[in-house]
Amino acid sequence: MKKPLFNRLALIGVGLIGSSIARAAKAQGVVGSIVATARSAQTRKRVAELGLADQVVETNAAAVEGADLVIVSIPVGACGAVAKEIGPHLAAGATLSDVGSVKASVVHDMAPHLPKNVHFIPAHPVAGTEYSGPDAGFSELFVNRWCILTPPDNADKAAVEKLKAFWKALGANVETMTAEHHDLVLAITSHLPHLIAYTIVGTADELSEVTESEVLQFSAGGFRDFTRIAASDPTMWRDIFLANKDAVLEMLGRFNEDIASLTKAIRRGDGEALFEHFKRTRAIRKGIVDIGQDSPAPDFGRPHPDLKLPLPKPYSSEG
Amino acid sequence: MKKPLFNRLALIGVGLIGSSIARAAKAQGVVGSIVATARSAQTRKRVAELGLADQVVETNAAAVEGADLVIVSIPVGACGAVAKEIGPHLAAGATLSDVGSVKASVVHDMAPHLPKNVHFIPAHPVAGTEYSGPDAGFSELFVNRWCILTPPDNADKAAVEKLKAFWKALGANVETMTAEHHDLVLAITSHLPHLIAYTIVGTADELSEVTESEVLQFSAGGFRDFTRIAASDPTMWRDIFLANKDAVLEMLGRFNEDIASLTKAIRRGDGEALFEHFKRTRAIRKGIVDIGQDSPAPDFGRPHPDLKLPLPKPYSSEG
Repeated sequence: MKKPLFNRLALIGVGLIGSSIARAAKAQGVVGSIVATARSAQTRKRVAELGLADQVVETNAAAVEGADLVIVSIPVGACGAVAKEIGPHLAAGATLSDVGSVKASVVHDMAPHLPKNVHFIPAHPVAGTEYSGPDAGFSELFVNRWCILTPPDNADKAAVEKLKAFWKALGANVETMTAEHHDLVLAITSHLPHLIAYTIVGTADELSEVTESEVLQFSAGGFRDFTRIAASDPTMWRDIFLANKDAVLEMLGRFNEDIASLTKAIRRGDGEALFEHFKRTRAIRKGIVDIGQDSPAPDFGRPHPDLKLPLPKPYSSEG
Repeated sequence: MKKPLFNRLALIGVGLIGSSIARAAKAQGVVGSIVATARSAQTRKRVAELGLADQVVETNAAAVEGADLVIVSIPVGACGAVAKEIGPHLAAGATLSDVGSVKASVVHDMAPHLPKNVHFIPAHPVAGTEYSGPDAGFSELFVNRWCILTPPDNADKAAVEKLKAFWKALGANVETMTAEHHDLVLAITSHLPHLIAYTIVGTADELSEVTESEVLQFSAGGFRDFTRIAASDPTMWRDIFLANKDAVLEMLGRFNEDIASLTKAIRRGDGEALFEHFKRTRAIRKGIVDIGQDSPAPDFGRPHPDLKLPLPKPYSSEG
């Protein structure tokens, strides 16, 4: 049997992402053992019940003792305090990483607290669902998804390669870029879509002319596609918008210009401008399906069997 | 065997919706025979090849002759001209319906051309995928989806009940409301989400700092959920925005107010306001899943087998 990539993985935070890492790392045999901790006693208890780690400990400091890989999977706003706490306890030569959706702020908050003999390599697996907590994770979450590493310029090459191998073993494709570029890319591919989804779901909720039950009932017309991402963890997303403020505000500004120009086309009845725009966006969808980042199944992969409502009995056979 | 609900169904337009009606009506035995027509010779040929109708004819006038149910399934902007064309050829006592996503404009455009002895009952099945054309339809499209009828005040009650029974046989739930209320409900549940999705996909496409391949690659962060609806038929959607202009502009105005207030919260670093908003929208998602209008499957029902990329071989078994 091949030696595992890392002897001891310490997981700080065991929600959707942390628990998926635990499940996948165990299934793939890439770590010798897993020690986990979480802020709340309730989560620690659940992690132990689910058997996600070999050991569940009460403090972050205890978790990192002797670990050669530490992954912090918590809302980005909490990363600075955790770095301060674990800094003095990290093993020499250990790799410290995270899974945050914003990278420059995480580097800014964590780096000052870390000893020089630790490899700090921030990471962001671009994967998730709208569910949270240790029960929500599953070992296939990262399969065919991208994990972005943002190693600093002076990062140890061997340590970066080893962390890459770890994520590849979990099924992910790995890309590296600077923290700043990451934050710009994610502002448009993730943060702005979430902000807009949160907005429109709130707008619908406040209408007096249309009842809430009508909004739910007729959501298959498009609205439901927005509600999934507007159901994501509120704490995580609050932190993301505060941490990636500049890039999000920049993308919001451009979005506002574009929506103003489509609004003008509608107001003026300019069908040609609308048609040209809509034709162009269709091609982008095709690109996403072509590279395997979405399923082309009809009805967006919502299988009808799940609805437990097959076609009614044929009309003619009833009589 | 029970007598079918209608003897002869005439379908004008056989795209995603029209061809799904043909498939479902046939499977359920609710019509004696189906005659179909489409504007392009190519579509008519394909409809014949797929065996979607008992008869495929070349003109709208020929299609409606002797039909007791006529369903027009074409972009809403084309409905007026078709009504003018078929008006003189409709059979006395026939029911004429449509499937348009806007109702007041359809009534305004079609009603003046229709004889008094025809039951005009507009309808809108709230169901669809991002695909178009006769090949895209499937018989289960309407199962557990809502079909909204907007009968005029003086509509014949028996004719309305008969059309309701038709849609119920196809698996739909049926609701009736005024055309004006329909247009307001759909403006928020469907038209505004589409407009926003079309906008943001366009915004992403125009960025110079982020490459198109990066946008596609990292779309799993939220963006891909918008691209599906931004891939819908451009002609159909151009017509919808022009036909439901007032309600769409009204909803856009409210959306703009709401996004301005979230933008302000981000700019000021007001985490509490963001958190409270995000907590509220999560509850709405739960409502949609609870009433069966979406699947709660992890990863939005995108099954991993479809990706043809299972977990890599366990790391430890390679050595």
